[in-house]
Amino acid sequence: DTVAANGEVQLARNGDHKQALRFTFSAEPTIEDIRRMQAEFTDERDWNQFHQPRNLLLAMVGEVGELSELFQWRGEVAEGLPDWTEPQREHLAQELSDVLIYLIELAEKCHIDLPQAVLRKMALNRMKYPASKVHGSAKKYTEYKDSSE
Amino acid sequence: DTVAANGEVQLARNGDHKQALRFTFSAEPTIEDIRRMQAEFTDERDWNQFHQPRNLLLAMVGEVGELSELFQWRGEVAEGLPDWTEPQREHLAQELSDVLIYLIELAEKCHIDLPQAVLRKMALNRMKYPASKVHGSAKKYTEYKDSSE
Ligand SMILES: Cc1cn([C@H]2C[C@H](O)[C@@H](COP(=O)(O)O)O2)c(=O)nc1N
Ligand SMILES: Cc1cn([C@H]2C[C@H](O)[C@@H](COP(=O)(O)O)O2)c(=O)nc1N
Repeated sequence: DTVAANGEVQLARNGDHKQALRFTFSAEPTIEDIRRMQAEFTDERDWNQFHQPRNLLLAMVGEVGELSELFQWRGEVAEGLPDWTEPQREHLAQELSDVLIYLIELAEKCHIDLPQAVLRKMALNRMKYPASKVHGSAKKYTEYKDSSE
Repeated sequence: DTVAANGEVQLARNGDHKQALRFTFSAEPTIEDIRRMQAEFTDERDWNQFHQPRNLLLAMVGEVGELSELFQWRGEVAEGLPDWTEPQREHLAQELSDVLIYLIELAEKCHIDLPQAVLRKMALNRMKYPASKVHGSAKKYTEYKDSSE
C-alpha cells in the first residue's frame, strides 16, 4: 500500500484487488478530541442545561434532515461527487460535521465510550456477515443464512 | 484537570465551573482507523458496488431510526442513563456505532475529510454563537442577534 496522504485520493493496492482510487482522512482530530472541544464549546455557553440525551438526539435528527436535503431530487451520486461545485462540497462537509458533533455529544451524555463501542460492533458485523458467505451479495443475514450458496 | 480515565466518569475541574462528573472516550480507534476498518470490511465482501453515497445515507437514516426507537415513549433521560440496564446500554452502544460507521463511510465515498471538516465547522459555530452573547440561552443566532441582551 502507498502511504496515506491525508484527505487526498491516492492510488492504493488493496490485497488482491486491482488498483483503486482510495480516499483517506486526516489522523486528527480524534473522536475524543471532538468530544472535548464540543464539551468546551457547551461549557463556555452554559448550554449543558439544554443538552440532555433526547434533545441531542433530536438535534442530530434535524442535522440528518439537512444532510438528506443535499442528496434529494438527484439521481445516483458517483463516488467523489465529480459534478458537485466547491461550495456544494463545503456545505456537505458542514452537514456531515453537524451530525458527527451531535452524535459524539449524545454518546458522551449517555456515558457510552463510542470509539470502543465501534470496535465491538465491527466484530459483531464480521460474525453476522462472514465474508465467505456474503461475497458480492447485499442480502441480509436472515435472507442468506439458509441458502445453499 | 485530572487525567482522563478512558471510558470512565471522572471528577474534573473545568475552568471556573464547579466540579462536575465528566465522561471521556478512549483515544482509539480514530475516525481514520474506523474508515480503514470499514473499507476492509466492505472490500472483503465485495460490497462497494452497493455502497454508493445515497445508499449509505439511507442506511445511516435507517440506523438513526433504530437509535431513535431506544429513546421513544420515555420521559426525559438523565445524563449517564442511570435507569438503563446493561443490555439496554449495549444496544444503545451498537446503534450509535452503526450511525457512526455509515456516516464515516458516507464521508469517505464523498471524498470529504471528515475530521478536518469538523474543525472548520466548530470554528464557524464559535463565530455564529459567541459565548459572551449566548451564555445560558438556547436561542438561535437569528433570534438573539438583534436583541439588546
Ligand atoms: C444551537 C446549538 C448549536 N450547536 C452547534 C452544534 C452544531 O454543529 C451547530 C448547529 O448549529 P445550528 O443549529 O445553527 O445549525 O452548532 C450546539 O452544539 N448546541 C446548540 N444549542
Ligand atoms: C448489510 C450491511 C451491513 N453493514 C455493516 C454496517 C453496520 O454497522 C451494520 C449494519 O448491519 P444490519 O443492516 O444488519 O443492521 O453492518 C455494512 O457495512 N454494509 C452492509 N451492506
